[in-house]
Amino acid sequence: MATPGSGFWSFGSEEGSGDAENPGTAKAWCQAAQKFTGGIGTKLCALLYGDGEKPMETGAKEDLGSAEKTPACTCNNKPCSCQKADINYAFLHSTDLLPACNGEITTLSFLQDVMDILLQYVVKSFDRSTKVIDFHYPNELLQEYNWELADQPQTLEEILLNCRTTLKYAIKTGNRHAEILLSGIAYYPVFTYEIAPVFVLLEYVTLRKMREMIGWPGGCGDGIFSPGGAISNMYAMLIARFKMFPEVKEKGMAAIPRLVAFTSEHSHFSVKKGAAALGIGTDSVILIRCDERGKIIPSDLERRIIEAKQKGFVPFLVSATAGTTVYGAFDPLLAIADICKKYKIWMHVDAAWGGGLLMSRKHKWKLNGVERANSVTWNPHKMMGVPLQCSALLVREESCSELHLLEEKCSATQITPSCTNRCRRSQ
Amino acid sequence: MATPGSGFWSFGSEEGSGDAENPGTAKAWCQAAQKFTGGIGTKLCALLYGDGEKPMETGAKEDLGSAEKTPACTCNNKPCSCQKADINYAFLHSTDLLPACNGEITTLSFLQDVMDILLQYVVKSFDRSTKVIDFHYPNELLQEYNWELADQPQTLEEILLNCRTTLKYAIKTGNRHAEILLSGIAYYPVFTYEIAPVFVLLEYVTLRKMREMIGWPGGCGDGIFSPGGAISNMYAMLIARFKMFPEVKEKGMAAIPRLVAFTSEHSHFSVKKGAAALGIGTDSVILIRCDERGKIIPSDLERRIIEAKQKGFVPFLVSATAGTTVYGAFDPLLAIADICKKYKIWMHVDAAWGGGLLMSRKHKWKLNGVERANSVTWNPHKMMGVPLQCSALLVREESCSELHLLEEKCSATQITPSCTNRCRRSQ
Repeated sequence: MATPGSGFWSFGSEEGSGDAENPGTAKAWCQAAQKFTGGIGTKLCALLYGDGEKPMETGAKEDLGSAEKTPACTCNNKPCSCQKADINYAFLHSTDLLPACNGEITTLSFLQDVMDILLQYVVKSFDRSTKVIDFHYPNELLQEYNWELADQPQTLEEILLNCRTTLKYAIKTGNRHAEILLSGIAYYPVFTYEIAPVFVLLEYVTLRKMREMIGWPGGCGDGIFSPGGAISNMYAMLIARFKMFPEVKEKGMAAIPRLVAFTSEHSHFSVKKGAAALGIGTDSVILIRCDERGKIIPSDLERRIIEAKQKGFVPFLVSATAGTTVYGAFDPLLAIADICKKYKIWMHVDAAWGGGLLMSRKHKWKLNGVERANSVTWNPHKMMGVPLQCSALLVREESCSELHLLEEKCSATQITPSCTNRCRRSQ
Repeated sequence: MATPGSGFWSFGSEEGSGDAENPGTAKAWCQAAQKFTGGIGTKLCALLYGDGEKPMETGAKEDLGSAEKTPACTCNNKPCSCQKADINYAFLHSTDLLPACNGEITTLSFLQDVMDILLQYVVKSFDRSTKVIDFHYPNELLQEYNWELADQPQTLEEILLNCRTTLKYAIKTGNRHAEILLSGIAYYPVFTYEIAPVFVLLEYVTLRKMREMIGWPGGCGDGIFSPGGAISNMYAMLIARFKMFPEVKEKGMAAIPRLVAFTSEHSHFSVKKGAAALGIGTDSVILIRCDERGKIIPSDLERRIIEAKQKGFVPFLVSATAGTTVYGAFDPLLAIADICKKYKIWMHVDAAWGGGLLMSRKHKWKLNGVERANSVTWNPHKMMGVPLQCSALLVREESCSELHLLEEKCSATQITPSCTNRCRRSQ
């Protein structure tokens, strides 16, 4: 933390306005931001013009409250029309924001506070006395805060606190030292633990929560976010093959018996696609017949498994579908799990679309048996409405080395900076 | 386009304020946005309060000019302190914005105009009489605008125009019809041509420009953006294998001879990783010795190719590196190209890091010979400073069916909505 009067706040006087390298940029940015956001920059403005007050980590509301009493944004020698309402966020939730009825003032006020937090981060980033990163090991951070994804929604107060925490531990890329040290990687906010500790840990707790909802005790297991459902399904196939024949990694498909995978005739095309990419071949994906509602017929699955074994092929994967693309059908997972257990085959559930039903008390029975799967694809950007493409592959066993094939043995449940770093380089 | 007085602007009166489904939300959003952004919402505010003027596609500056003369933001019955400077963007560039010296007013004004454009889009999205999408076929859009990536930087005026054009053709997800029709996919702004025509075409022209810089005449060829350099390198390996043995797609590795790939001992780990994933096996990646500066020794490469052939293996890929991870070394591409030609081997260049030098008149000679490659990995998020992870695989041959393996024959140079749709589902 900078001492008052040092760093960014005194750029002009300390560095001299004639310094070509420091053309008052931070100050100018701050002024522009202050104007752009109306009255909410009051505090920053006051600081900039010399009362020496520092931005506070948690005291934003008090400051803004006083700004309301005296609309003191006098940068332009004009009164500022932007007022800040005195709102207690401790009892409000995102559902109280627009488009909620009468949500105007709350929304405006909340957005102003978010902007305030962002401005504080920008100011800190410019401050040469701020550390490039306030580094803590994963376990320290996990212990210091409550990372639980609760069943109840967070209050707006908690959301603002989370914003502050995230930025507190984020790398300060505006820092001159960061520019020099990290010219190549400073821009990727979620690439490694060192760059984005909070986001990496959020990923960890989110994946754990998803596994918990699948029904794996305590959310045990492993997982990874991938670019899309097709890649998640391919990863599942990769892990299933590796688990059965680890030597495939060094020796390739030439060294192992001919594999066959099974999926329904209504399944997603990515199962065949994955087999093509992995050198297994689309001919080795056997499509099982469905009933009139688009659900796989378990007896047909078992028949085809026996048939394949008789031909000398090795069944290594059954990819069931929870929510088919056209019918939205859910394969009978319990019956499939029994068959997979009987023949010792990796059971994957492509719940890219249907996984969202695990959040519904009323409908989650449709996925009964998913807890017996070895791996599950679940795309939060589908039924859960996450705004950007977001797919997760969740694995019941604890180890991510199979997910990454060439990485050293490391598990997402034992995050260390170097491990996470390597894991996330997989893409 | 809505007629004055219809759609969003008359939500309250037309639909009735008691309508539970339309709780004045659009109006409320607009008010909040207006307050939040200070005076720049003046025009919207005036419209909302009844003068019937519609937002104009290109007339924003004139409107704001008049707002300056009469600071008429009377929503709160208070004068608005936010003024809009009269700036001619036709002669300004991004370098005139902060952190440029004296860039405060220009930056503020430019940001206000961007916000104005976004607000117009929000308003339009709420307007029930706006089409969900103003659909044009790719060739129509390509002909209607200048898509050239010029050597000279764009003016701020052009950038604003581009923002307007992008949103003009973007899907309006706020539209009630869009909500119903596209519940599953409306959130992905760049997933298919139908959803994001401008972004898809931008991708097309950007990849073409990158191929042009590689030296392929007229930017011919094909390409795809991928999640990262490792995946791009894996795609290259996939294509090389498919080109030599197309039957691998259906029959798998079991049906083709034992393949071998070559790369330097200083190359990125993703070459081995890709071989593991694709069922080729890491043992089939032969590491070639480097000189003391980390460059591959061509004579050693040729020796190992001959050796592998004598053992009955089939060399199918050489992955040269332009910018190694540790030394930043550039393999001698011309010599490697000669060897690849002699032995009919797919030449890939992993220029994930070094590709940026193609933009430099002074340094691009380091990649001499890259134009003879069959495929190139180039990550704009590295030396080119693109803020988010961004990797491209560029292929000299015109066809993307190999990139997608299971898709129908279609080429990015002949974009059609359905083709693009399928292609982009690959992840």
